[in-house]
Amino acid sequence: MFFQVIDILGTIAFAISGVLVAMEKKLDLFGVVIIAFVTAIGGGTLRDLLIGNTPVGWMQNLTYVIVILASVVFAIIFVKQLKYLRKSLFLFDTIGIGLYTMVGIEKGLQAELVPVICVALGTMTASFGGVIRDILCNEIPVIFRKEIYATACIAGGFSYFLFAQLPIVDAYANIAAIIVVILTRLLAVKFKITLPNIYRT
Amino acid sequence: MFFQVIDILGTIAFAISGVLVAMEKKLDLFGVVIIAFVTAIGGGTLRDLLIGNTPVGWMQNLTYVIVILASVVFAIIFVKQLKYLRKSLFLFDTIGIGLYTMVGIEKGLQAELVPVICVALGTMTASFGGVIRDILCNEIPVIFRKEIYATACIAGGFSYFLFAQLPIVDAYANIAAIIVVILTRLLAVKFKITLPNIYRT
Amino acid sequence: MFFQVIDILGTIAFAISGVLVAMEKKLDLFGVVIIAFVTAIGGGTLRDLLIGNTPVGWMQNLTYVIVILASVVFAIIFVKQLKYLRKSLFLFDTIGIGLYTMVGIEKGLQAELVPVICVALGTMTASFGGVIRDILCNEIPVIFRKEIYATACIAGGFSYFLFAQLPIVDAYANIAAIIVVILTRLLAVKFKITLPNIYRT
Repeated sequence: MFFQVIDILGTIAFAISGVLVAMEKKLDLFGVVIIAFVTAIGGGTLRDLLIGNTPVGWMQNLTYVIVILASVVFAIIFVKQLKYLRKSLFLFDTIGIGLYTMVGIEKGLQAELVPVICVALGTMTASFGGVIRDILCNEIPVIFRKEIYATACIAGGFSYFLFAQLPIVDAYANIAAIIVVILTRLLAVKFKITLPNIYRT
Repeated sequence: MFFQVIDILGTIAFAISGVLVAMEKKLDLFGVVIIAFVTAIGGGTLRDLLIGNTPVGWMQNLTYVIVILASVVFAIIFVKQLKYLRKSLFLFDTIGIGLYTMVGIEKGLQAELVPVICVALGTMTASFGGVIRDILCNEIPVIFRKEIYATACIAGGFSYFLFAQLPIVDAYANIAAIIVVILTRLLAVKFKITLPNIYRT
Repeated sequence: MFFQVIDILGTIAFAISGVLVAMEKKLDLFGVVIIAFVTAIGGGTLRDLLIGNTPVGWMQNLTYVIVILASVVFAIIFVKQLKYLRKSLFLFDTIGIGLYTMVGIEKGLQAELVPVICVALGTMTASFGGVIRDILCNEIPVIFRKEIYATACIAGGFSYFLFAQLPIVDAYANIAAIIVVILTRLLAVKFKITLPNIYRT
């Protein structure tokens, strides 16, 4: 129940971020709707395709479709007010990637894949919706260029497999890993921590 | 039989539109062939992947490969004359999206998906070949920016599920839905109807 | 054994080529890693998806993940020296596409697909990692624009099906086809042979 609420808040945050990017690009209504969808469900769709979970998730549960369409309507009407909500959106988005990371890892475990592949699936679930969004909008994906985003997912993913070694209930390991994702990102943004510069300047 | 002829005309129109875009971008022969393929079969391929119909359709029926290769040869030879055929091409293309929409819906019904997802699959079948073509050519997909195109597919798709409620043979509901797609697009282009402007200017 | 060594050399060459492109685009460390992965395994992943081989190959054999990560570390450290290795890299890459072409054809035969589709799968395995790399870096894919690259794969692929008609062991037909790919590319580059110009200038 708690998870489902967070999952929906994450979907809303991703969908709204898609609408904002699409409107900046002056796409028409159809384009805006598609970019909102792709941002919210693109990562999970890619994950489902790679492990062979078809028909992919959002085709089997209409909740996502409904939540995304409602978010689009909301975002288009309140686009001006949304700028005052940037902090809330950032928080939803951050919680969203935490949860999406854990969802991806669970799917990998169900498919009996090894931990490092599960972490890759979790990271993909959380961050590749944004990658597809940026490609459709003809931009180099923002997560390849700045900010600790995918890195937070990777850190949280590996910490899950550490926590899972401890003598605790699995649900606690789940929650701890989600918190690692969220804290990593929040602290990185707050203290302006970035990945090490690999270019000798 | 009637359907197969239309299907092939649609494939030809899509392949030729791919060749024209690729030649504008000055791609080499291999690039032109790939873009023609992707435009013609990209939407159906994405649909087959998402619902798990693999190997995807064009791998199991060589008709598409042959028709597309022949269209490429034809289009390269007659590229100058093709501008006089723009109206015919537009007509094939419009008939093509009508038929492709219905094909996608049928595949969704076979996979026992709900109507709204079937409509999404129909729209994807008809319009995502063009989306992939535009991405490969480094453009923001044209259907996200102008013209009622995907919208015609969506309108036709939902009208199919209305017609299917009527006490008529299913084939008639099919044909009626295809006609809705075609008419929506023809009328939109003729009367310059576009999606509502979501930007306050 | 021989094949596995070549396969790994090909993977290294593809991964390093990904790193070099990503660094030119000034991507951050995460971006560089992703582009290296995509270049090395993107073609095989697309092939596996299209024929329904899921979970896709690299999820089931960690060798690729390890080789690619090691290549990334190596390439970042020795980026300056790599320019003196361009000839070796070109050679690995050329051997790599030869082998990848044959791997793709084998997978197609296992899925009982007809020869022309097998050749398409082989070409895709060898060349679409580079296509995805270029799209993620917001470039029109280089293989659509110049050089005999995919064409070498296609030539080698069809020659395999010719060799397979001869009364020889299948492994020899395999090796002969790989040699055709490699020679076609080497000769094309050496003698500056390109695809016929389809633009009347």
